[in-house]
Amino acid sequence: MNRAAFAALTGAVAGMLATKSLAAAPQGTSRVAMVVYPGMTALDMIAPQLIFAGLGKTDVQLVWKDRQTVVSDTGVPIVPTQTFDDVADGLTVLFVGGYGGAEAFSVMNDPHVVRFLQRVGPSAEYVTSVCTGALILGGAGLLRGYRATTHWDFRDVLATLGATPVAERVVVDRNRITGAGVTAGLDFGLTMAAKLRGEDHARLLQLLFEYDPKPPFDAGSEATAGENIGRQARAVFTSLVASAKANAAIAGERLALGGHQ
Amino acid sequence: MNRAAFAALTGAVAGMLATKSLAAAPQGTSRVAMVVYPGMTALDMIAPQLIFAGLGKTDVQLVWKDRQTVVSDTGVPIVPTQTFDDVADGLTVLFVGGYGGAEAFSVMNDPHVVRFLQRVGPSAEYVTSVCTGALILGGAGLLRGYRATTHWDFRDVLATLGATPVAERVVVDRNRITGAGVTAGLDFGLTMAAKLRGEDHARLLQLLFEYDPKPPFDAGSEATAGENIGRQARAVFTSLVASAKANAAIAGERLALGGHQ
Repeated sequence: MNRAAFAALTGAVAGMLATKSLAAAPQGTSRVAMVVYPGMTALDMIAPQLIFAGLGKTDVQLVWKDRQTVVSDTGVPIVPTQTFDDVADGLTVLFVGGYGGAEAFSVMNDPHVVRFLQRVGPSAEYVTSVCTGALILGGAGLLRGYRATTHWDFRDVLATLGATPVAERVVVDRNRITGAGVTAGLDFGLTMAAKLRGEDHARLLQLLFEYDPKPPFDAGSEATAGENIGRQARAVFTSLVASAKANAAIAGERLALGGHQ
Repeated sequence: MNRAAFAALTGAVAGMLATKSLAAAPQGTSRVAMVVYPGMTALDMIAPQLIFAGLGKTDVQLVWKDRQTVVSDTGVPIVPTQTFDDVADGLTVLFVGGYGGAEAFSVMNDPHVVRFLQRVGPSAEYVTSVCTGALILGGAGLLRGYRATTHWDFRDVLATLGATPVAERVVVDRNRITGAGVTAGLDFGLTMAAKLRGEDHARLLQLLFEYDPKPPFDAGSEATAGENIGRQARAVFTSLVASAKANAAIAGERLALGGHQ
């Protein structure tokens, strides 16, 4: 019902653009599977989800090992729409967002998650992440040999997973597209929209969602936040970075990447 | 469990700052009630929710008339954490996000919603919105006589509800704080963080969530998107703007604001 209304809306968008940028888009329906899990940071997933849903002719599913409600790191209960078993190979986009709440980064070595990512990753048109979702992709070996980014304070951990860490907002290396921390999901999403439907469709979505950012402060990177705020932020993440490193070491051994740090 | 981990994280933040910017913050726990409803745009709520949860000593609830799962405009199923009846007066922040899916803007005149907002609004420390959530506040008479903003294509509708429309990213008029469309929730959220915990806490959250926006295109406003994209966007919203106007007229009569357009 409410989905139908938005489908009509995005159908209208797609219809308007069909004679232009969509002419070159693939026929049929795009399929996006976004992994959700307990303790995830909901914003990592929600911003790209809105953009994927706005592509028109796109089936967007929130997938987890079962259909039980997962509660985000800040207490948002979200109900998965499909199980891993429901997801057929040949996805247009495989997406994973970051963080893991009380379980911290053990999701990187969760056998259900690793098996799912290793099954659907190789046949996906795009393998993507925002924030520490890149570490989960990496835990399944999907970033080995690729340039990638993740949340600024976890970037070095990517090397343990065989990836080359890059300090950029969105990193595109062949079909691996990774976004930086949390709020980078918007820049990531528009990058994906341009790839999947053309730049004019991405611009249309940017205007529909009024993405004209005006942060009241300039503290979004270590460089601009200053030494004091940077030190406080690193202190907040100390135990989480330790968990990420420990889980990356386990994953590296499992993947025979030769990392032992 | 995962909430506990984030509470620990944000508790750490609060602890670090307690000797500085938090020294002037009110004692006890802040209480934030965020209205969720079928067809809402999840991003409007999710970005501020992350920031509110990051304030430390803050209870953040997702409230609706019952505890049934509400499905967002793009198909994200979210479970309310409290009913309207569970919410005591004296909130720190009352928040409403925008859109309404198939029901469009009828939520502005939903008697459960209007009654709830009229009950808790007057005693709330801050009455706030993102995107067309402002129209829902206005439908309960809570923006009468206030400067406010909303999504760019719905801004004029605010006048029918007795508010003065303002074309800014975040508008602060006494204790009414309203954000522009969808993605303005981040700028709104950091504005709220600064009001509630001081500018340094807002800067810390900005760095934790890496809010260093780098949109790949410059089409977030009518001025920058260009005539062609602007026309397409207005076409997408035509029927929704009509629904907003019709519901605002009904609300205006109900509130005896004398509007008949």
